[in-house]
Amino acid sequence: MRIGFLQLRPKFGATKKNVKKVITLLSRVSDATIVLPELFNTGYLFRNKEELASLAERIPGGYTVTELKKIAKLKRLNLIFGMAQKAQRKYYNAAVYVSEKGKVEVYQKVHLFEREKLFFTRGKSLKVISSGEAKLGIMICFDWIFPEVSRSLTLKGAQILCHPSNLILPYAQAAMKTRCIENRVFAITANRIGTERMGTGSLTFTGGSQVVDPTGEVIVSAGDRSESLKVIDVNIEEAKNKNVTPANNIIDDRVPSLYSVICSKKK
Amino acid sequence: MRIGFLQLRPKFGATKKNVKKVITLLSRVSDATIVLPELFNTGYLFRNKEELASLAERIPGGYTVTELKKIAKLKRLNLIFGMAQKAQRKYYNAAVYVSEKGKVEVYQKVHLFEREKLFFTRGKSLKVISSGEAKLGIMICFDWIFPEVSRSLTLKGAQILCHPSNLILPYAQAAMKTRCIENRVFAITANRIGTERMGTGSLTFTGGSQVVDPTGEVIVSAGDRSESLKVIDVNIEEAKNKNVTPANNIIDDRVPSLYSVICSKKK
Repeated sequence: MRIGFLQLRPKFGATKKNVKKVITLLSRVSDATIVLPELFNTGYLFRNKEELASLAERIPGGYTVTELKKIAKLKRLNLIFGMAQKAQRKYYNAAVYVSEKGKVEVYQKVHLFEREKLFFTRGKSLKVISSGEAKLGIMICFDWIFPEVSRSLTLKGAQILCHPSNLILPYAQAAMKTRCIENRVFAITANRIGTERMGTGSLTFTGGSQVVDPTGEVIVSAGDRSESLKVIDVNIEEAKNKNVTPANNIIDDRVPSLYSVICSKKK
Repeated sequence: MRIGFLQLRPKFGATKKNVKKVITLLSRVSDATIVLPELFNTGYLFRNKEELASLAERIPGGYTVTELKKIAKLKRLNLIFGMAQKAQRKYYNAAVYVSEKGKVEVYQKVHLFEREKLFFTRGKSLKVISSGEAKLGIMICFDWIFPEVSRSLTLKGAQILCHPSNLILPYAQAAMKTRCIENRVFAITANRIGTERMGTGSLTFTGGSQVVDPTGEVIVSAGDRSESLKVIDVNIEEAKNKNVTPANNIIDDRVPSLYSVICSKKK
């Protein structure tokens, strides 16, 4: 099975330009599962809810999903990409899955970061998608810091964590290695690069997209300066073996009755 | 508050020798919370349950706890150390807390590693201890791989993860940085060094004891060749601030209703 990422430098607000570039880049590969960054088609730093409203799209009817369905079909790709979703009068920071056969699924980001809380509605469920021979667990950017996300996705059957990101903090790449070790899954983190400015503020995104295997090894990665499309062959069976030693299965060895505080309602 | 570790090279089966060495080393410090390795007084590689039975001790009545209570009182230390516990007809891989005032508490390892399953009974609860100005969450070695352990301890109030270890795999030191970042706690991993042989097999322990702060930074560490006692001043208030950004509190941002699979009974 071939999996990988497309690390990008989107231009803020230029949806068509960003989508067209992605289609050009994706036309170089085929028969693969590729993760793109969070909000890849619009950029990240919305001034206000009105600006978000003008850039968010319907899923599946909008421009971006329609275009990416075409390239997915043409090149036999399964794509996972981040974009702003308009649904009724709400806006979600979403990750869309588009299969080579035209199937569309959506995960709406649960753990919103910083100013995202001003504009976006929080998602209400985690998402595992059956995709050909693999099960994909979807998480977006800041979801990484909550160990409950990748653990829940694993327990629901995910074998590959697909992780569209707009990372600005320096922690996630190393933490995703821990996520892979503790869950014995693959993880694809697709980050973006570039700087966005708004008023006197700016954000610089840190690149370093990577694919990590179930032993925590980074098997392919990108730097922080260039757009980068990388694909690698993996054996999905490795994510089905949960034994770290002959006597230790990291799923069977769990003692859920001792973890109840994790699932308790907050006070 | 002063916290640290004592990295050791125990001699297998030589309890008195190991304890005396520790007392000599600990006499160099005072007014601190110090973590020692797992099974520091006996070594690790028990041939069989009979050998374990001959080396395990009662807690608090046995030799090791009695001796360490004396040095804890003399030097105003709070100590956390690993040892084999005999309790009725069961044996536990235990971590003992001895305070400067003579208070004794015990955590019995929940997630047993490899051959430990042949001899030891699994513990039935997690443990957070109020120790002066701090709350200590106790975990032993392989407990690290289960994110539920450090998360549960944090949710129960732990500010410092005290982590006696006999590590042979290369993953834990990096993973403990993730544990600190995702929980915003301190962690003290006290590992051992040296090689133990049994028949044709042997285990080499990897040292690299460390103290990590709530941002994931290693603030003091040891190599893999020498016994090492290191103590550092920390501000425990840093572990009470759970905000990674002004708008993101990593505890308040959790959505426990979405994590229920983690606490579900196994099928």
